[in-house]
Amino acid sequence: MSGTGTAADPTPPPAGAVPEGVALRVAEDLLAEVDFAKDRDGLVPAVVQDATDGTVLTLAYMDAEALRRTLQSGRTWFYSRSRREYWQKGETSGDRQYVREVRLDCDGDALVVLVDQHGRGACHTGARTCFYRTVGSGPGVPAP
Amino acid sequence: MSGTGTAADPTPPPAGAVPEGVALRVAEDLLAEVDFAKDRDGLVPAVVQDATDGTVLTLAYMDAEALRRTLQSGRTWFYSRSRREYWQKGETSGDRQYVREVRLDCDGDALVVLVDQHGRGACHTGARTCFYRTVGSGPGVPAP
Repeated sequence: MSGTGTAADPTPPPAGAVPEGVALRVAEDLLAEVDFAKDRDGLVPAVVQDATDGTVLTLAYMDAEALRRTLQSGRTWFYSRSRREYWQKGETSGDRQYVREVRLDCDGDALVVLVDQHGRGACHTGARTCFYRTVGSGPGVPAP
Repeated sequence: MSGTGTAADPTPPPAGAVPEGVALRVAEDLLAEVDFAKDRDGLVPAVVQDATDGTVLTLAYMDAEALRRTLQSGRTWFYSRSRREYWQKGETSGDRQYVREVRLDCDGDALVVLVDQHGRGACHTGARTCFYRTVGSGPGVPAP
């Protein structure tokens, strides 16, 4: 798994071209610990977070195949529960997510995916994050 | 829904006492849009995020009752899928989560809960976040 080097590409893409994703380095022992079987449909929730400022952009679901495609392509793939099909974020909208890191939680049944978000944002409404509505708000720890 | 005021409490709690949570201000119209019925078990995933630095601390599940308790107590309540019971974060460990904000996503089937995390952290292992393991890593958007 050598790096891609820093030498200039002899045939650079044209200005404005959409960059390809890059396959991630994978810790195979941890990959085997993702517990897809816990869920009836073999899915785990994937929290997609902006790698730059920490905004939680969206929550979607991955099965083993969607995770495999994500790790291999370097861009997010999900499984749609309603449409029952795989989809790659940004393939129609152009709002692509390039993956920097995939993290697994302590009991293996949830993922955090840190991404560089391209385009307008993550939400199909055009908002940057899907979580743009506030149901409740308070002080957190109250002042003593 | 008046504020609690800023005047000094005539009977302040003793030093080191654990503060109580404070009920959140609730947008009832948005609360009605949380789509618990989409899931067979009436649950939605709740992404718990540190309100101060944006760390995703844990992912757990809420049904309507757990969300109601969270909004009313100002501390996180969840529903355990494996134990089939309600639990309040920190009630045994002391690692309490005081809620600043509950956000709903565009299609109403996921929550982000911004908290002040007290104690060691959110994970039962003693780690600050449950997402302490890296399955895959890469460059994000590759250099041009």
